[in-house]
Amino acid sequence: MYVGKSVNRVDAYDKVTGRAKYTEDFIRNGSYTAKILHSTIAHGKVISIDTSKAEKLEGIIKIITCFDVPKHSFPTAGHPWSVDENHQDIADRRLLNEHVRYYGDDIAVVIAENEVQALQALKLIEVEYEEYEAVFDPIESMNSNSIPIHEQTPNNIIGHTKNRFGNYEEAIKEKGLIKIDTWYETPIVQHSHIENHIAYAYEEQGKIVVVASTQIPHIVRRVCGQALGISLGKIRIVKPYIGGGFGNKQDALYEPLAAYLTTQVGGHPVKLDSTREETFVSSRTRHSEKIHIISYVRSDGTFVARKLELYANNGGYASHGHSIAAKGTNCFHQLYPCDNIEADGYTVYTNLPTAGAMRGYGIPQTMFAFESHLDDVALKLGLDPIELRIQNIMPKGFKDGFSRNENYYDSFREAIAVGRRAIDYDKKREEYKNQSGNIRRGVGLGCFWYNTGVYPISVETSSCRMVLNQDGSVQVQLGETEIGQGGDTAFSQMAADSIGVPLDDIHIVSTQDTDVTPFGLGAYASRQTYMASFSITNTAKIFKEKIIDRARKELEFAPKNLDLVDGMIIRKTDNRQLMSLGELATIALYDNKDSDHISAESTYTIRNNAFSFGASFAEVEVDIALGKVKILRLVNVHDCGKLINPRLAEAQAHGGMSMAVGFALSEELKYNDKGKILNNNLLDYKLSTTMDHPNFEVYFIENPEPTSPYNTKSLGEPPTCSPAPAIRNAILNATGVRVNQCPMTPHVLFPLFKEAGLIENDYEKEMKYENKAWSVENV
Amino acid sequence: MYVGKSVNRVDAYDKVTGRAKYTEDFIRNGSYTAKILHSTIAHGKVISIDTSKAEKLEGIIKIITCFDVPKHSFPTAGHPWSVDENHQDIADRRLLNEHVRYYGDDIAVVIAENEVQALQALKLIEVEYEEYEAVFDPIESMNSNSIPIHEQTPNNIIGHTKNRFGNYEEAIKEKGLIKIDTWYETPIVQHSHIENHIAYAYEEQGKIVVVASTQIPHIVRRVCGQALGISLGKIRIVKPYIGGGFGNKQDALYEPLAAYLTTQVGGHPVKLDSTREETFVSSRTRHSEKIHIISYVRSDGTFVARKLELYANNGGYASHGHSIAAKGTNCFHQLYPCDNIEADGYTVYTNLPTAGAMRGYGIPQTMFAFESHLDDVALKLGLDPIELRIQNIMPKGFKDGFSRNENYYDSFREAIAVGRRAIDYDKKREEYKNQSGNIRRGVGLGCFWYNTGVYPISVETSSCRMVLNQDGSVQVQLGETEIGQGGDTAFSQMAADSIGVPLDDIHIVSTQDTDVTPFGLGAYASRQTYMASFSITNTAKIFKEKIIDRARKELEFAPKNLDLVDGMIIRKTDNRQLMSLGELATIALYDNKDSDHISAESTYTIRNNAFSFGASFAEVEVDIALGKVKILRLVNVHDCGKLINPRLAEAQAHGGMSMAVGFALSEELKYNDKGKILNNNLLDYKLSTTMDHPNFEVYFIENPEPTSPYNTKSLGEPPTCSPAPAIRNAILNATGVRVNQCPMTPHVLFPLFKEAGLIENDYEKEMKYENKAWSVENV
Repeated sequence: MYVGKSVNRVDAYDKVTGRAKYTEDFIRNGSYTAKILHSTIAHGKVISIDTSKAEKLEGIIKIITCFDVPKHSFPTAGHPWSVDENHQDIADRRLLNEHVRYYGDDIAVVIAENEVQALQALKLIEVEYEEYEAVFDPIESMNSNSIPIHEQTPNNIIGHTKNRFGNYEEAIKEKGLIKIDTWYETPIVQHSHIENHIAYAYEEQGKIVVVASTQIPHIVRRVCGQALGISLGKIRIVKPYIGGGFGNKQDALYEPLAAYLTTQVGGHPVKLDSTREETFVSSRTRHSEKIHIISYVRSDGTFVARKLELYANNGGYASHGHSIAAKGTNCFHQLYPCDNIEADGYTVYTNLPTAGAMRGYGIPQTMFAFESHLDDVALKLGLDPIELRIQNIMPKGFKDGFSRNENYYDSFREAIAVGRRAIDYDKKREEYKNQSGNIRRGVGLGCFWYNTGVYPISVETSSCRMVLNQDGSVQVQLGETEIGQGGDTAFSQMAADSIGVPLDDIHIVSTQDTDVTPFGLGAYASRQTYMASFSITNTAKIFKEKIIDRARKELEFAPKNLDLVDGMIIRKTDNRQLMSLGELATIALYDNKDSDHISAESTYTIRNNAFSFGASFAEVEVDIALGKVKILRLVNVHDCGKLINPRLAEAQAHGGMSMAVGFALSEELKYNDKGKILNNNLLDYKLSTTMDHPNFEVYFIENPEPTSPYNTKSLGEPPTCSPAPAIRNAILNATGVRVNQCPMTPHVLFPLFKEAGLIENDYEKEMKYENKAWSVENV
Repeated sequence: MYVGKSVNRVDAYDKVTGRAKYTEDFIRNGSYTAKILHSTIAHGKVISIDTSKAEKLEGIIKIITCFDVPKHSFPTAGHPWSVDENHQDIADRRLLNEHVRYYGDDIAVVIAENEVQALQALKLIEVEYEEYEAVFDPIESMNSNSIPIHEQTPNNIIGHTKNRFGNYEEAIKEKGLIKIDTWYETPIVQHSHIENHIAYAYEEQGKIVVVASTQIPHIVRRVCGQALGISLGKIRIVKPYIGGGFGNKQDALYEPLAAYLTTQVGGHPVKLDSTREETFVSSRTRHSEKIHIISYVRSDGTFVARKLELYANNGGYASHGHSIAAKGTNCFHQLYPCDNIEADGYTVYTNLPTAGAMRGYGIPQTMFAFESHLDDVALKLGLDPIELRIQNIMPKGFKDGFSRNENYYDSFREAIAVGRRAIDYDKKREEYKNQSGNIRRGVGLGCFWYNTGVYPISVETSSCRMVLNQDGSVQVQLGETEIGQGGDTAFSQMAADSIGVPLDDIHIVSTQDTDVTPFGLGAYASRQTYMASFSITNTAKIFKEKIIDRARKELEFAPKNLDLVDGMIIRKTDNRQLMSLGELATIALYDNKDSDHISAESTYTIRNNAFSFGASFAEVEVDIALGKVKILRLVNVHDCGKLINPRLAEAQAHGGMSMAVGFALSEELKYNDKGKILNNNLLDYKLSTTMDHPNFEVYFIENPEPTSPYNTKSLGEPPTCSPAPAIRNAILNATGVRVNQCPMTPHVLFPLFKEAGLIENDYEKEMKYENKAWSVENV
């Protein structure tokens, strides 16, 4: 059995040696390079574009403007399609846009023989705009009277989730209730995957082929068809290895535009490769959210009534639409069930770059608010934050009516117990009780839950094909994609066990090619290991039956007495090895009376979802005068069911914790008052690095998930959900100061600490002096 | 219905626009180039190779010699494998050879950064040989006492077919029999495909990937495994479009060596691209054959007893072994059945380049002999050649005991009748009866039969996979390969009809990739349209059943009342269109309770073979003094069953006739007495071109073949089988001179005409003068 073992990644050797092929490696000599002209206003209309000077440059093949492209809109979200119009994604984007919705919108493209020529041409294109008033804040936007960002959405509200349980207004009339009322805010951050988005398109065999760095090849195929207005059978998407996605590539980004461009140059190959600067502006970001929570509690810690208002800043285009804010809003009544709840979540267009899916899909934002709020309540009541959580958190047996997700174990309390022990919570709480001075320490925690996939909101389906080689090895094809997370390794382990062959005999076909790869939805919603486990085991069952049936023909044994174990056909009565699978495959294939190339393919519709649970515990050291937070320890505890590969699971958690540290302490995209980005590069955008991390500690509670064949459930996104509030609550524990926004930079902390009286005037003076000195030095 | 219609080639647009990708197009920047050092002796042993000087050159990555490669031999023939050792191909080749068997054998390889460096290095390598006696003639070779060409074959005889029917020795005792006893000889010719052989190999994902110009990707995969001694699951062959093969690429050529080379440079990509000069020597050729026929006939034209001796010159390595000569030998007793037959066919190693499969697989050689002999018999008896054939040729109802092939119609006599009318045979025979002077004309014919595939000698199997897209279009994958013949178009037509969708909705996956392409044997033995017709119709049946079953679920109609016609689900009772296949596919895929990605895959074992029949008629004009033959008309008549695509069928025939014209009149590889080739390029090797052709005329007798679903049978090779003897017999008709060897060049004809008294001394003198003048001019 390979499931449960920390086998090496199947792609380790190729990736370490640089042999692994990415989209860039597919580009042929003589391909054209396309470069996009981005708008220099945040909101308005392109009146005219003069390309005459640019066209005179050497090497310019063609310049295409927003006036040339098809006049219909398409959706970009990496969601499965629905035949129900009400479940379809919002079609609000064109290949290039006359109505400009953010500073950096796509208005024209130069196709040139090389990049230098294309960039020179961009500078010579003259654009005339009619400028509209721009709005950057979601609450302002939904109340704005200016020209709507999208005509069909007059109030700029993309979606509104409204949950009502019990009777909030009645419940808060109870005498003696304590009210805790706070606003929280999270920043716009970016995925910052190593490989920027790249798409490479050409025509071949009556089709447009797009090689692209995407998480969702089959979905991108459909979107390209919609964008170009052609039948999707005439589109072929090839997805090689990709250098990270984290949700940004769970959208059709520039694949539709690349597909269109090749059709404009007679099918010649065209490369459309985003720079880092473009990626920061013109791909997707994580929604900034403003979250208002009011809790009415009894002094014993009982929640009586709770209210949530959530405003998600979606930027200029719908992308995933309201689903991200909806997920966060729906979390409210599940994490801490309470009888009387009012929750409203809004997703609102603004004139900022488009927000889309990013690891956690709305949960990092809401967990920052919800779990900060929990500590705020505990502080107000004088209760220990852990005790307040244990008292109120989702209990064993909780079942969500809509998703039918169930908490089969007391996973939350188990996770809290493990983290509490691991970080020595009680001792540290005691120790850090009465601190003074500039350097103070604290511990804190945050919890989260996460779904696994998107059922029942959308279809969850996975298809798998297995092909037997003459040496007994097996190709396994899935539409689920390796995006760096180790999916291929987990799939291979499950396939080896399900079929009964050595792991070395599983050849996972890593590259998805929509022409030949069975349909699968791709990498998102932490779905893949869970969903693929169904299609792999189901297909393996059919595959194995065919193998056993063939073995029966060759050996004349009753099938029930035969099995395939470790690549050998065995007799079950005494476990004797009768022949190898390779021998059988060879005999079957070259039998000139009855040749058989054994393969199996099947689709599995997954009609389940599963809760994943966990908690983060942080220990921090705060330098109050500098407003600097150093993370001393960060512990994540997860119940993601049984682990397929413990070492990969731990790595997955490390990656998520790293992203969460950046989200908590340093990362934020900033814009000026015209909506122009100020830090569109990795020098100015403060991505968290190993220099900012302690040694991450990860623990797993492997409560076997009963819905899935290998008892697994989501782990991809969960690790990024709860570290930020844990850090925030540790700061609170250290300083007594409630920090209600991320990232918790010195710029945020310093005024808060000052307001709290933690910073003496001396410090302030000193700081001012230092800042000045620093400025001078850098002039 | 698309079968039977001359639809456009599915690859026409890509090929005309240069968009189609060939192996060369896969080569990435930075790949290494490998160049082979070929032996400069025809037979001997490499004693030492000094690479020290070559290694010092810039850019040399590695030099590998025959002393470095694995010490085991492997077979190269493009035959399906057999688990029966006696049916396995001869393993007599190593990646590089210490024992050198022909002038041009592979003894070392330079891997360099580029081609210039590699070629420079080749010149600096010093080789010391021990030279053995070389033999170039098959009859001499089998009687030679010198060192055998392969140790395990002491008499140099690769194989011997011995057929005995009746009692030849008794039969010839009959009084009054007329004996006709002649030797015939055919040349060594080369396929001369436009694209020389090329293989490009690299390691990736634990596998060796070889992109190669091959007809037989799945077979080459197995051979590469054998050659390198590794499991074939770790080999992946990718076959893009190829620029012709004609049987030369029905062998593993340099794919195994390329696969080995990449393993020697850490998996770095290595290109191994043959030049035209190398292709002429170091790939494969068509066997030269010496054929001895003795016929005993009665004066009424009855064949009483016949004897055949056939000697095929196989060159230095076995390649396809004896199967080619065996096929020709077995033809003898079938074409003109006769009660008393002795036939012996031998395949013999010599120290010439290796002969292998070439379009016709031994039949062009034997037809040249057999059909020339028929006219020789007719001449002797004073009978018309057509009447003699009609009297003796394979009758309707003839059944071959071994292959179980049956002549279900009187196809031969029908074909002869059509050709006779088309070329106005009787009138021309009359007209050309008493000619004199230097320019004379004649008409002649030749017949042939041909098998379809290799059953029952080897397994015949074809697998097919069909994948439904959401727009109702379908990917079709087959292991059978497009090699320029139009296979993909024929497969698409059959798939469209079998499934019930418009032809535009069939997306044939042209590139075979052994990782994901169902097993199929590839392009050879004129098998593909026939074999694929079984797997396509069988898979379409399963595929369609799944579609109808899904339609039933959506529509609640009894499946028996539903059908799929032209891409629409119809109600059979009134032919009403209920929904499109695209709608059904989309509903099925996105059904979140029961999602279905419809596909089907199946293997079909074909346990049939089928006779194809035909005849060629030629009209020639002979300039006796110049020994020049001009073809005025060339007519081919074929019964290849029902035509899938008449225009493609005609083009197929044109190509074969062109090859046959070269074989008849101009093409021959020549060697000096050391076995060194004299004309290894397309200037000196006289390939027939359109300048040498009349407008080819082709007629089809579409007798429906009862064994195959679309009533089709072989056409790929047949057109090349009978033109040569038709031309030869037309020359005989024109001049009365029997030419018993090909090519019938002036060098051959002049002495024959002189011997026959057709050339006066005046002519002779004039010729000598002219030759001299010509020589002077060209000094």
